[in-house]
Amino acid sequence: MKIAVVGIGIIGGSFCKAIKKNTSHYVIGLNRTKETLAQALSDGAIDEIGDIDSLKKADIVILATYPKASVEFVEKYGEYLKGKIVTDSAGIKREICPQMVELSKKFGFEFVGAHPMAGKETNGYKSSDADLFKGASYIVVPCEASDEAVNTICSLGLEIGFGSVKKTDPEEHDRMIAFTSQLPHVLACAYVLSPCCPNHKGFSAGSYKDVSRVANINAKLWSELFLENREPLIEELITLRENVTMITDAVQQGNKERLEQLLEQAHQTKEMLGE
Amino acid sequence: MKIAVVGIGIIGGSFCKAIKKNTSHYVIGLNRTKETLAQALSDGAIDEIGDIDSLKKADIVILATYPKASVEFVEKYGEYLKGKIVTDSAGIKREICPQMVELSKKFGFEFVGAHPMAGKETNGYKSSDADLFKGASYIVVPCEASDEAVNTICSLGLEIGFGSVKKTDPEEHDRMIAFTSQLPHVLACAYVLSPCCPNHKGFSAGSYKDVSRVANINAKLWSELFLENREPLIEELITLRENVTMITDAVQQGNKERLEQLLEQAHQTKEMLGE
Repeated sequence: MKIAVVGIGIIGGSFCKAIKKNTSHYVIGLNRTKETLAQALSDGAIDEIGDIDSLKKADIVILATYPKASVEFVEKYGEYLKGKIVTDSAGIKREICPQMVELSKKFGFEFVGAHPMAGKETNGYKSSDADLFKGASYIVVPCEASDEAVNTICSLGLEIGFGSVKKTDPEEHDRMIAFTSQLPHVLACAYVLSPCCPNHKGFSAGSYKDVSRVANINAKLWSELFLENREPLIEELITLRENVTMITDAVQQGNKERLEQLLEQAHQTKEMLGE
Repeated sequence: MKIAVVGIGIIGGSFCKAIKKNTSHYVIGLNRTKETLAQALSDGAIDEIGDIDSLKKADIVILATYPKASVEFVEKYGEYLKGKIVTDSAGIKREICPQMVELSKKFGFEFVGAHPMAGKETNGYKSSDADLFKGASYIVVPCEASDEAVNTICSLGLEIGFGSVKKTDPEEHDRMIAFTSQLPHVLACAYVLSPCCPNHKGFSAGSYKDVSRVANINAKLWSELFLENREPLIEELITLRENVTMITDAVQQGNKERLEQLLEQAHQTKEMLGE
């Protein structure tokens, strides 16, 4: 197959590299910054530096730009996508999928939503990695695509290294992602804003490192993701504040029995999950 | 030197193994559960299964039990500690150090407080590791000990693999530990108490894993640590709730500029620290 990847940042670049490493598909790269494409070509991450016209020869188009930019790209160049399978990599789905489904009908392509559950605390093509998706979960949101199109995307995911595929709908996706991904990013940022943070060295170990890791955040991207998933994220933030307050109250009241009970409940949750 | 280690759990066991791996000191192990001592002897982690009388021949005594239990041990067996250097591994210092200093005067030993900044989300001798302290920070709280005693403990720390020694006082220790260690443990527990947690699989990746790791907590030990460091911990919890609230408000109000500014501030903090 010929696969066009639009946006060669950490995610798009990793798609290119993973496809080249694990399959014999032909990869066409599209990117605003041309230097990145030259680098990707010289790295063997893409077979061809593409432009809008190159989209016509692709079987699959993977959109790997920011969520809103993906929709804008399709609005603008939808006529080049006719007959193709188009997939995305946006971390929000309720906001994106209905627009994409509508555009797919207008322009005659199939849209299969997707969200690769992998990333790093750095970004850009320089952070891309042929093994970024290795063992990770590939969330697939079929929307109104045919079984054939959905299977093509799922198979491609497994072929390029994802450990598993999780099919879901936009609502479940956004509710779960608010918890698994967005909330840890809010927590990490809120955590490092403590006045103690700049002086942590010598006093810190693994737990500081782990909870603060993703605070090295791409502020522009994550602001967009948070705002477009407002309700589920706010719900998780409220739940978290309630849970922090329960523990705070037990500490403040010196209520050892209650405190042990809350911590034990957390411990049991992790044990039950085999973590 | 002859070194007695009291309490052969993850920390005490790691001290034994690290001393045997990196030095030629003689290690005497003391522990309530005798099976653990037999195992440690057969592993070569200790040279001798000790009892209270064995303390008399030690030059250094490392207390590696729960904080309060360390004080109780010294209250009970202080007469066996005369002339020795005694150190501990408690994660709280304002509560422990003054009592130990008083006991050191009563029984004629030198007390050097210490806190190895290393651990795992599991515990017990089975989790101990000769390399647990490798590259970690060894926090040393000299209290009223002589320079010679303090230097002996610092040198031993570096000799057995710690990457650095940080000298401090009980107040700074407890304030910083509330931020670097206790707060991440509260956050991890509060986080996994979300009703979404049991269903996270397929929707999660590194940020879930990192923020939730230490929720697999030893509820009894950490309840003791939280309650004995109440004021600094509560202060950090209040700061954190304020920071979470700032971010929540920006999301709720759809204030993209404010949200980006807060996330960028977090990003800059990590960048400045070279993380």
